[in-house]
Amino acid sequence: MTISSFKPPRRTLMGPGPSDVSQRVSEAMARPTIGHLDPYFIGMMDEIKSLLQYAFQTENELTFAVSAPGSAGMECCFANLVEPGDTVIVCQNGVFGSRMKENVERFGGLAIMVQDDWGRAVDESKLEAALKANPEAVLVAFVHAETSTGVQSDAEKLVRLAHDHNCLTIVDAVTSLAGTPIYVDEWGIDAIYSGSQKCLSAPPGLSPVSFNDRAAEKIKQRKTRVKSWFLDLNLIMGYWGDNAKRTYHHTAPVNSLYALHEALVMVQEEGLENCWIRHENNHLRLKEGLSSLGITFIVDEQHRLPQLNAVTIPEGVSDSLVRGQLLNQFNLEIGAGLGHLAGKVWRIGLMGHASNAKNVDYCINALASVLKKAA
Amino acid sequence: MTISSFKPPRRTLMGPGPSDVSQRVSEAMARPTIGHLDPYFIGMMDEIKSLLQYAFQTENELTFAVSAPGSAGMECCFANLVEPGDTVIVCQNGVFGSRMKENVERFGGLAIMVQDDWGRAVDESKLEAALKANPEAVLVAFVHAETSTGVQSDAEKLVRLAHDHNCLTIVDAVTSLAGTPIYVDEWGIDAIYSGSQKCLSAPPGLSPVSFNDRAAEKIKQRKTRVKSWFLDLNLIMGYWGDNAKRTYHHTAPVNSLYALHEALVMVQEEGLENCWIRHENNHLRLKEGLSSLGITFIVDEQHRLPQLNAVTIPEGVSDSLVRGQLLNQFNLEIGAGLGHLAGKVWRIGLMGHASNAKNVDYCINALASVLKKAA
Repeated sequence: MTISSFKPPRRTLMGPGPSDVSQRVSEAMARPTIGHLDPYFIGMMDEIKSLLQYAFQTENELTFAVSAPGSAGMECCFANLVEPGDTVIVCQNGVFGSRMKENVERFGGLAIMVQDDWGRAVDESKLEAALKANPEAVLVAFVHAETSTGVQSDAEKLVRLAHDHNCLTIVDAVTSLAGTPIYVDEWGIDAIYSGSQKCLSAPPGLSPVSFNDRAAEKIKQRKTRVKSWFLDLNLIMGYWGDNAKRTYHHTAPVNSLYALHEALVMVQEEGLENCWIRHENNHLRLKEGLSSLGITFIVDEQHRLPQLNAVTIPEGVSDSLVRGQLLNQFNLEIGAGLGHLAGKVWRIGLMGHASNAKNVDYCINALASVLKKAA
Repeated sequence: MTISSFKPPRRTLMGPGPSDVSQRVSEAMARPTIGHLDPYFIGMMDEIKSLLQYAFQTENELTFAVSAPGSAGMECCFANLVEPGDTVIVCQNGVFGSRMKENVERFGGLAIMVQDDWGRAVDESKLEAALKANPEAVLVAFVHAETSTGVQSDAEKLVRLAHDHNCLTIVDAVTSLAGTPIYVDEWGIDAIYSGSQKCLSAPPGLSPVSFNDRAAEKIKQRKTRVKSWFLDLNLIMGYWGDNAKRTYHHTAPVNSLYALHEALVMVQEEGLENCWIRHENNHLRLKEGLSSLGITFIVDEQHRLPQLNAVTIPEGVSDSLVRGQLLNQFNLEIGAGLGHLAGKVWRIGLMGHASNAKNVDYCINALASVLKKAA
């Protein structure tokens, strides 16, 4: 057996992530590897921290990138903030709420589920009822932007409700960061995690996170040890924290961090608000195009995510056939439905670098062409 | 605050890792990102599996790269193989044995420590005594190549002893894989983990692992759930396993895997045995050069790792001054001592792509120049 170098095709990535990575970010990632304790590298880590604080709109000291994909960022939040016996209210309106439940339970907590239909925003009154019925709850977790359905919940209101009942909050912002407004400090979010490969358009593999002082305090006061050495923030704080105290914890993914740094520099250059507006405008352009094809959204207009458009597959059309043709004939990736939405919806991403008018038009024309043949 | 693109200096990396990344690997990493469910990507994952099987010298089906650095690979082994109440014998002869102990305890096990001095190989008779004294032990863990001291233990003998006492084995091969012989199947190693950034010379961020059928069976038969969703092999088996069953678990670090793929293709091209011989030859060249400078090794000749040379800092020489000058004047990184060896030893890595005659000569000349000034 002899295996050759891998030469991937050049795709247009309009699925639920990863999104298209810009030339600038690719080039940054290919720069020479340096040591993770090199002074230049440590300086770059400090810059990533500042840039992430900007992206999250926070001054939280404990803001950094977990050295693993978004799922590990989620796990970092739950592993550190849940102690055995804790009651945690988890709002579920898609796939990722059930992963939160798994996290709570694996770390010894009791998960109280607040269910909403897939494709609906989290209902604040249901959360309020659950908080009243479970006064022992210490934590509320929800997904800001559900990648499985393209729905956005009102993070500010949900956090306020949680705080009114003395709960801390964990917010999944994997798909929302840099695509739609998030104000971590203004909204009082206690712990938040995201991913590098969605609206930041860096390659997958890193999970930006941020914890406020209340969350950090709870972690310092834990009665039991975190059930992970790799994700224990009591250890990681020494690594990403104050320069003077920076000690070896694990070998950071140097080149992936170069890529994240460059992606964040690009967000800073564009300006976060401009970035949000761009995502919104391209969403509207896509909506118009889809409408001309008679394709409808599964989410109410007011709760739609501009960066992740979940649409109903037209009657009589084969999901896999269409996606296969888009991929093979147009090098265009769009996403399939997950869970019980499989075969029923497509998920069209307009994330980060991929959120541009050219992609929208290309996608609409490709879809029109493939659907015409399918008809 | 405006932050600019990061342009790292070009170093020669002769510390304990990361090692120098070749142009081929850098270029591979910068190739266009594709989706983690793209058929081309899935094909590449299958190739990585084959290439890792070759590097580990195994036919284990459960051979893949954990989507995070070596510490997470370690955690993956312990999280899956340790159940609460399990007795685990951990052989410690450097920094990484204590991290293993942390892992055992965080997952609810009892760690029985077998201690050897730092810089000495694990003493087989001590392990045997511990196995006899703790017949309830189910697992033995040890470090094949201690990165903190540059010592190699006899993995084959240690595994055989463990098996004689009905224990499974976890072997840390972070620094040994592709640098020094490992025969996973022939030696009967049950679970093994490594890192991408040592003798494979891919950027840091991935941890190759392999589990044999006995280990996989123990994981399937667990009475309690793995205390991690991200690292639960019962879930990951579906992701890296048979094509037909490949389901979405987490978003793979696509570009980092391109880099690992290319690094493994290069090992395959050179041939694993040639790779080991090259590491040995460059070690001998370094040894000769160091000897001319009067610098001695801390490890007995028979247990020295060719890829990680721990040497005594000459009397009266300032550790940080010399390393600082090497870095700033020669762009050359060598490693500091860890733990109680800090300030007393240097760790000179000759790993992967960095293990070449040019680097050896450069390092010796740079050291000679700096030490001359320091004298």
